[in-house]
Amino acid sequence: MLYEISEKAIQLENQGKEMIKFNLGDPDLPTPPEIVEAAYEAMKQGKTKYSSAAGEKKLREELARIHGVSVDNVVVTTGSKWAIFSLLFLLLKRGENVVVPSPHWTSYELAAKKIGAEIRFLRRDLESDWKVDAEKLEALIDDKTRLIILNSPNNPTSKVIDDKTFSEIVQIAKSKGVTVLSDEVYSDISFVKAKSILDFGADNILVTGFSKSFLMTGWRIGYVVVEKELATRMIKLNQITTTCVPAFIQYGALKGLESRKKIADDIRRQFKVRADAAYSVLSKSKMRFSRPDAPFYLFPKVDGLDSERFALDLLDKGVAVAPGTAFGDYREYVRIALTVNEEKIREGLEKLCEALP
Amino acid sequence: MLYEISEKAIQLENQGKEMIKFNLGDPDLPTPPEIVEAAYEAMKQGKTKYSSAAGEKKLREELARIHGVSVDNVVVTTGSKWAIFSLLFLLLKRGENVVVPSPHWTSYELAAKKIGAEIRFLRRDLESDWKVDAEKLEALIDDKTRLIILNSPNNPTSKVIDDKTFSEIVQIAKSKGVTVLSDEVYSDISFVKAKSILDFGADNILVTGFSKSFLMTGWRIGYVVVEKELATRMIKLNQITTTCVPAFIQYGALKGLESRKKIADDIRRQFKVRADAAYSVLSKSKMRFSRPDAPFYLFPKVDGLDSERFALDLLDKGVAVAPGTAFGDYREYVRIALTVNEEKIREGLEKLCEALP
Repeated sequence: MLYEISEKAIQLENQGKEMIKFNLGDPDLPTPPEIVEAAYEAMKQGKTKYSSAAGEKKLREELARIHGVSVDNVVVTTGSKWAIFSLLFLLLKRGENVVVPSPHWTSYELAAKKIGAEIRFLRRDLESDWKVDAEKLEALIDDKTRLIILNSPNNPTSKVIDDKTFSEIVQIAKSKGVTVLSDEVYSDISFVKAKSILDFGADNILVTGFSKSFLMTGWRIGYVVVEKELATRMIKLNQITTTCVPAFIQYGALKGLESRKKIADDIRRQFKVRADAAYSVLSKSKMRFSRPDAPFYLFPKVDGLDSERFALDLLDKGVAVAPGTAFGDYREYVRIALTVNEEKIREGLEKLCEALP
Repeated sequence: MLYEISEKAIQLENQGKEMIKFNLGDPDLPTPPEIVEAAYEAMKQGKTKYSSAAGEKKLREELARIHGVSVDNVVVTTGSKWAIFSLLFLLLKRGENVVVPSPHWTSYELAAKKIGAEIRFLRRDLESDWKVDAEKLEALIDDKTRLIILNSPNNPTSKVIDDKTFSEIVQIAKSKGVTVLSDEVYSDISFVKAKSILDFGADNILVTGFSKSFLMTGWRIGYVVVEKELATRMIKLNQITTTCVPAFIQYGALKGLESRKKIADDIRRQFKVRADAAYSVLSKSKMRFSRPDAPFYLFPKVDGLDSERFALDLLDKGVAVAPGTAFGDYREYVRIALTVNEEKIREGLEKLCEALP
């Protein structure tokens, strides 16, 4: 349904209709020019040959320094999505399962199903402010559970898991012999401080990337911090699949790391303005939602809404949103990605509110 | 062993030793500057966002035009290696098998094993000029065979499958209900005309890419021509794994296609000079080999040679080659990639000949 909406929105645009697109997590802001220039310089210097399947040494060293780990723990990947797919592929056998708090990013579910693993969802609700109930999570784990996937800040709710709950989940995982895969792609640009899995030692898996915090979505570069043996297995899988992230892209990312804080601060500031604007419009509507802890999403609810029907009808009004069903069993919700400017956010959300049944 | 040699060669270089590296299929020639400039222009124009998992429309259209197929048959992939892995992943179930004439590119074997499929090798020999014996190939096929992988021109022998044999193999596959996956990455720069799987209709699979024929190894861009239903399955797998090839890379490749013939002619001419130089040095040695039909490799034999031992010892003399065992059961062979200039080819091969036992 996510792809159907996206394609229909593009079709309408091609027919000349002006669309306000809240449907994709791809910010409108351009990649910082210093990253583009560094990538170009690297291309001209011949960084266009096969590169290491582990990632360029300089980039791995810098990431290791940032996270306080060894270079051997860092593997650069063709986007964080490839990292997640390859981890599920390497760690889960057919019939084994992974536990994921829902609502959740669609790709976890599709990847797990594709490799024949079972995915078990822990339902969260707006009414309890999207909190993870650690006791209920524990009850989902059995002897076939290999992984728990956390995503804080979360897509689609933009909520951060509080420190106490995060700690409880890590303890439960440890006691059950289950690994935590923590997808932290929105962490650097979060409005509130988000706990990292690395705060709890080196047994678990950090997956993150440059897409969101360096505005590099289409560049396809992410990385993991994992224990060395698993790093070796991921590198070997890269060797027979994606080979490497183009070296010139890695030099672009390395340049971005030089101004990591400044770039993240800029993104955070701009998206805070947008989140506040969206909040002020939606607060006047009958939609209920939780204030976002991070960019880019709002995940409001309207009791009784059929969000798939609503999202399709809304396209004709020139607004695209993602139905809640794309993120689990959340038919009464829509996901609004604030990836357009403030003026368009106000205009688009007013149209959306008018269209509510 | 291929990676061990490669890493030792790099270690020695880092220690200040001058190495002549014949061990990797990564040509020393730079990516044509018009491709670099086109990629840079695309970056600056904001082609840095998520792109289609099928490939950019303009690139797919141009590839469809070149191959005389529909756009729906073309899928752009993160290198031809990812195309091969994803095809094996989608088409082979655990316990099913794929038939591959050997010697063969290492990745076919590693990918098939990684997904739990069986790989059956058809042995070819230097003594019969590396010909595929179609009858023996047929005998390897059973009711669990899903694919035959052809690679003409071949890595590591640089031999082209003759038209009659190619046609026989396609007929056998058809009669047995088996699909042919034809990896044609060296085809555009071949010294002799190589038959394409597309010459035999649209039932089979073409895999190729920009790495070799546009000197874009590190850019990770390839593509397939497949029937529409399989294209759709590959696109869906891309959506949950690699997402897309960066759009700016695709615009670089599209620029390359404008001077496709000129670029291929240049590469072919330069590598013909290198192949002739190598031929003249090796002809004076006790090595036996077949004259290459295409860049970049020679695959000579020395009776009784332990090529792994030889390759490791040769590193100390400043020359890196790949042992034949990396390409199947070919212990008496070494693969020499002519990816250095003519002068170095002569110097390196003379050192190699001197070191022969």
